[in-house]
Amino acid sequence: MTETDRRLAISAPDPRTLDLIFTNEALAQLRSKYEIVEADPEDIAGLGDAVLRRARYIIGQPPLSHETLDRMPQLRCILNVESNLMNNMPYDVLFQRGIHVVTTGQVFAEPVAEIGLGFALSIARGIVDADVDFREGNELWGGDGNVGARQISGSDIGIVGFGDLGKALNRVLSGFRANIKVFDPWMPRSILEDHGVKPASLEEVLTTSDFVFVVAAVTSENKGFLGADVFASMRKGAAFILLSRADVVDFDALMAAVASGHIVAASDVYPQEPLAKDHPVRKLKGFLRSAHRAGALDSAFKKMGDMVLEDMDLMDRGLPPMRCKRAERETVSRMRSKPVTKN
Amino acid sequence: MTETDRRLAISAPDPRTLDLIFTNEALAQLRSKYEIVEADPEDIAGLGDAVLRRARYIIGQPPLSHETLDRMPQLRCILNVESNLMNNMPYDVLFQRGIHVVTTGQVFAEPVAEIGLGFALSIARGIVDADVDFREGNELWGGDGNVGARQISGSDIGIVGFGDLGKALNRVLSGFRANIKVFDPWMPRSILEDHGVKPASLEEVLTTSDFVFVVAAVTSENKGFLGADVFASMRKGAAFILLSRADVVDFDALMAAVASGHIVAASDVYPQEPLAKDHPVRKLKGFLRSAHRAGALDSAFKKMGDMVLEDMDLMDRGLPPMRCKRAERETVSRMRSKPVTKN
Amino acid sequence: MTETDRRLAISAPDPRTLDLIFTNEALAQLRSKYEIVEADPEDIAGLGDAVLRRARYIIGQPPLSHETLDRMPQLRCILNVESNLMNNMPYDVLFQRGIHVVTTGQVFAEPVAEIGLGFALSIARGIVDADVDFREGNELWGGDGNVGARQISGSDIGIVGFGDLGKALNRVLSGFRANIKVFDPWMPRSILEDHGVKPASLEEVLTTSDFVFVVAAVTSENKGFLGADVFASMRKGAAFILLSRADVVDFDALMAAVASGHIVAASDVYPQEPLAKDHPVRKLKGFLRSAHRAGALDSAFKKMGDMVLEDMDLMDRGLPPMRCKRAERETVSRMRSKPVTKN
Amino acid sequence: MTETDRRLAISAPDPRTLDLIFTNEALAQLRSKYEIVEADPEDIAGLGDAVLRRARYIIGQPPLSHETLDRMPQLRCILNVESNLMNNMPYDVLFQRGIHVVTTGQVFAEPVAEIGLGFALSIARGIVDADVDFREGNELWGGDGNVGARQISGSDIGIVGFGDLGKALNRVLSGFRANIKVFDPWMPRSILEDHGVKPASLEEVLTTSDFVFVVAAVTSENKGFLGADVFASMRKGAAFILLSRADVVDFDALMAAVASGHIVAASDVYPQEPLAKDHPVRKLKGFLRSAHRAGALDSAFKKMGDMVLEDMDLMDRGLPPMRCKRAERETVSRMRSKPVTKN
Repeated sequence: MTETDRRLAISAPDPRTLDLIFTNEALAQLRSKYEIVEADPEDIAGLGDAVLRRARYIIGQPPLSHETLDRMPQLRCILNVESNLMNNMPYDVLFQRGIHVVTTGQVFAEPVAEIGLGFALSIARGIVDADVDFREGNELWGGDGNVGARQISGSDIGIVGFGDLGKALNRVLSGFRANIKVFDPWMPRSILEDHGVKPASLEEVLTTSDFVFVVAAVTSENKGFLGADVFASMRKGAAFILLSRADVVDFDALMAAVASGHIVAASDVYPQEPLAKDHPVRKLKGFLRSAHRAGALDSAFKKMGDMVLEDMDLMDRGLPPMRCKRAERETVSRMRSKPVTKN
Repeated sequence: MTETDRRLAISAPDPRTLDLIFTNEALAQLRSKYEIVEADPEDIAGLGDAVLRRARYIIGQPPLSHETLDRMPQLRCILNVESNLMNNMPYDVLFQRGIHVVTTGQVFAEPVAEIGLGFALSIARGIVDADVDFREGNELWGGDGNVGARQISGSDIGIVGFGDLGKALNRVLSGFRANIKVFDPWMPRSILEDHGVKPASLEEVLTTSDFVFVVAAVTSENKGFLGADVFASMRKGAAFILLSRADVVDFDALMAAVASGHIVAASDVYPQEPLAKDHPVRKLKGFLRSAHRAGALDSAFKKMGDMVLEDMDLMDRGLPPMRCKRAERETVSRMRSKPVTKN
Repeated sequence: MTETDRRLAISAPDPRTLDLIFTNEALAQLRSKYEIVEADPEDIAGLGDAVLRRARYIIGQPPLSHETLDRMPQLRCILNVESNLMNNMPYDVLFQRGIHVVTTGQVFAEPVAEIGLGFALSIARGIVDADVDFREGNELWGGDGNVGARQISGSDIGIVGFGDLGKALNRVLSGFRANIKVFDPWMPRSILEDHGVKPASLEEVLTTSDFVFVVAAVTSENKGFLGADVFASMRKGAAFILLSRADVVDFDALMAAVASGHIVAASDVYPQEPLAKDHPVRKLKGFLRSAHRAGALDSAFKKMGDMVLEDMDLMDRGLPPMRCKRAERETVSRMRSKPVTKN
Repeated sequence: MTETDRRLAISAPDPRTLDLIFTNEALAQLRSKYEIVEADPEDIAGLGDAVLRRARYIIGQPPLSHETLDRMPQLRCILNVESNLMNNMPYDVLFQRGIHVVTTGQVFAEPVAEIGLGFALSIARGIVDADVDFREGNELWGGDGNVGARQISGSDIGIVGFGDLGKALNRVLSGFRANIKVFDPWMPRSILEDHGVKPASLEEVLTTSDFVFVVAAVTSENKGFLGADVFASMRKGAAFILLSRADVVDFDALMAAVASGHIVAASDVYPQEPLAKDHPVRKLKGFLRSAHRAGALDSAFKKMGDMVLEDMDLMDRGLPPMRCKRAERETVSRMRSKPVTKN
């Protein structure tokens, strides 16, 4: 194949890098199948018409103007490997022209679900405190060390949000014979039922669960929707596990509910990241802390490249992308999860 | 029902107590269906023939002589709620007479499996150290905090021993699409295959797994069978998770393998329990500690009473017990797990 | 709510009827939430601007001209309850305007999968012939009646096509511990792997399976792609089960392969429907016949109405439809399954 | 190994044969590991002390007297490959001596469960009649041919008996998301719950199910326990599927209930086998017939040999048999399923 025979893809994956999201083998495949033009994301317009005219794919989400898009008649898809949609391109034009905008955030669902279950088991069985006590010679043996311990098997579990992450949680919980209720206002009940979970109101999920997993994305409508009244309504001793974004909760109210002993909690996300060295959550008993590490596994990043290659292959053959998630006209402007600044 | 109509059961559950192993409701049912004679386990013979002659069940495993058994013509079953079989009664006589000896240790399988998975997830994702670092203001954010982190989904998992606990582990792992290999020389391969796991040699299980769970009971044959050479043969960075009894491993060799950085480990059991305050495992990096707490959940103990009631009900109707596990002529003398002295 | 407050939906579900696809309860809900204008599908243009201007949804797939669409500024979605896409509207305009075109064919997946498994079990165990022989006093007892009988459990199964129907087949087969291979050129391998099946070439699926299920839709590219050479390449005695459309096979070659004794077959679809009274398939031994009955269950049709209501509810709230399947720009013109003329 | 080193097994598998129950490979393994003495089952005593003294296993269930057993001091196990226990040996002596009596009937569970599901699907979708009509040119197309058709997915299913066969049925039904209730008075509720089914009374199972599977063994207590009142109590149109033994039902009442149109039925077993040529069940509409073919698959028989080898291997190593099912002191005299006279 000569250079000009190959389809052209603009690479602007910032803050990711090709090396982060492709295995060596996948990167070799990418470079062999496509002509890759590595671009400064801040200056796609500067690439010149020889490139823009032939560009079929963009890997990344660089700012794009209406005018720049007009210069790219063959553009088929923007493969956004950051995965939070920024408001830096005219989505209406893209949708009108049938240019797909797809995201690869699904790669994080499995690792986040795994650490979420890890948090739940750690809380249910006091794994962290038991190890810390043991290091210091203060461990309690046998049943003495199990006050408050409980099983996940057979428990009542609530999940708030049933996107890729909620589904992944449901899957890793499948061996636990738990009673799983889900609140997701964007999801028809019948789809929840097809996944074997019980559709429920937010209130029911919160007030009748032993473990509540919050995996809802932040939207323009749900900022801070989980506050003091919500925590007060939870079962005494229930566990609240926050895995999506801190903006969906009133974080001070969450800390207060844990400090009072009413509930226990784990969180991977915080109102500020990084967090002040003297933030009170650092010393809060009953709170399990993780520093936004839930999804950022190297193995997850590497799956992004695989997804990009699979969908480019489908589009090369005149088919629509299926592996990545498509941005939707209706919701593109509602999503408000902040993009990451570091991987 | 008059007192003498009810079947008689001798209660000698030491070190358990009836209150530990029965819920209030189950205990009320036990007392209403049966005449319960609470006995000093060290003096069953002293109960007198009026009791012994009518005794149909013994709850517990008190020492019993051949002579005492001869005085109990109606005895149908010894329901051993400690669950490790002591060598304190003539099992041959019991088997000859068709008196069942059953144990309730199965109740621990699910909680042990859950904490075992919790250990694996904690190790895989650094949950304990990340929280400790966060408390102290030393946390690393995002991918920086995930060096060495990995997923269980899709990993290679080895299980040594496939009794109740191995099966429970396989069940809680069922949502992880892992590749599970099992070594159990007491179990036909076809039973392993029926459970969807791959029968494998001990060597294969140890050398080709990312996570190795040891749940084998101690027998007269396998004491210390996991030593330095075994740990050296494991994959670099693999996790060794010990959930049954410390006697199956060479504990010093295990610590050395972790100290060298070759493997990481978690253990719920120790050569001495409680352990010396200055035992080196307390400060060992890469080792997750738990003080024999894996099974001793109140909810587990309470299931013992339910099992006892279900099997007594079957035997009352002339059926064999099915819920508890039966001691076997062939293996009763081989089992060498030490009975617990505390719950 | 006054009449004009309610959103307006044009009803033109021909060949379906509202009574066929809605339960009484669902129809009451439809009529209460929406202003339903029942229309002659051949004359949507004749409805007048008072209706067209307000029309938000069309239930059905009536012919629509560019001009008519221009008179419907509020149109959000065409809910095609026939489910095969006819070439009777300017799809490019619809896609450009962001008007969704969705189909409800997914309702047939479960009943078709069930009868498909029923065909496989009937073939594997000779259920039909055994009953016919029994009626006539010619039955063979026990093992004598099981020559050629075999199990599905543990067998090699091939599925050609992994849309809704392939996935439903995989689900009803999940209790059989079978080795399932799938060929679907429109589907990335990783999605197949996520469903626990093995991605395979068409050749591998056909030559290494004991049971082959064909559930691929007809496209402009795959007409008659399963011919004499394909059948010859199958395992001796394997079963070929055709559930989608007759156009994907060379039907004469299929009959010849069955007549020769090389394979056995079942089919729900035929080159002509209804079929000539003297068609040779009627008397063909080793062939199980069904008259395009696989999906047309009343319970399936009734789910269409539920899907329509769920997606209209999502769109009423500014969300994209999720329950029905969306037509895609890339494939809308490729699908060539003939629409049904009767339900 | 010299002849006398090998353990001796007496072969008397009548009505089975070694060739029926062992694959060539397994038979070679049997002959290489063991000294096999093929015996006339009617004259085990005549084998002579040289054989009897060394006999460790008996494959089959030949008549055995107390005296003959006394001449076999090394006997460890009787591997009954017919699988119904005849009253032709002193079981009390065997149990007292700790000689295991095991059966291999579990091999039939999977094929019987498969044909049982095949019967259910055939009934639910009219598979047999649709094919017969099609042969004769009387087929009805599409929905016209589906009057009364229904899905198993989501239906209410009742299972009477939860031994190996009930469990296998539950497994092959696992992809159908059905609501499964089980009646089994020999089985504790908690075991049923562990299998994900709902324990229920016989009445509840019969009156609230769309499909009732009867897989209960005949005992001295349940002969004919399913009679006219039971069939009358079933849901209108429900399916009654008989897979174990005809003796558990009042067969005339079953036929009457089907003839009246109240229920539909399938059966693999009959009051007399073979059945009179003019028996009215032969022409009964709504009744699906099979001539005791459910389990008698060659692949099932061959598994018997594998089970025998696996358990002999365990016993050779001083372990109890685990693969076959053990006869129980309590129930050995209650089982009343007639042994087969042909395979």
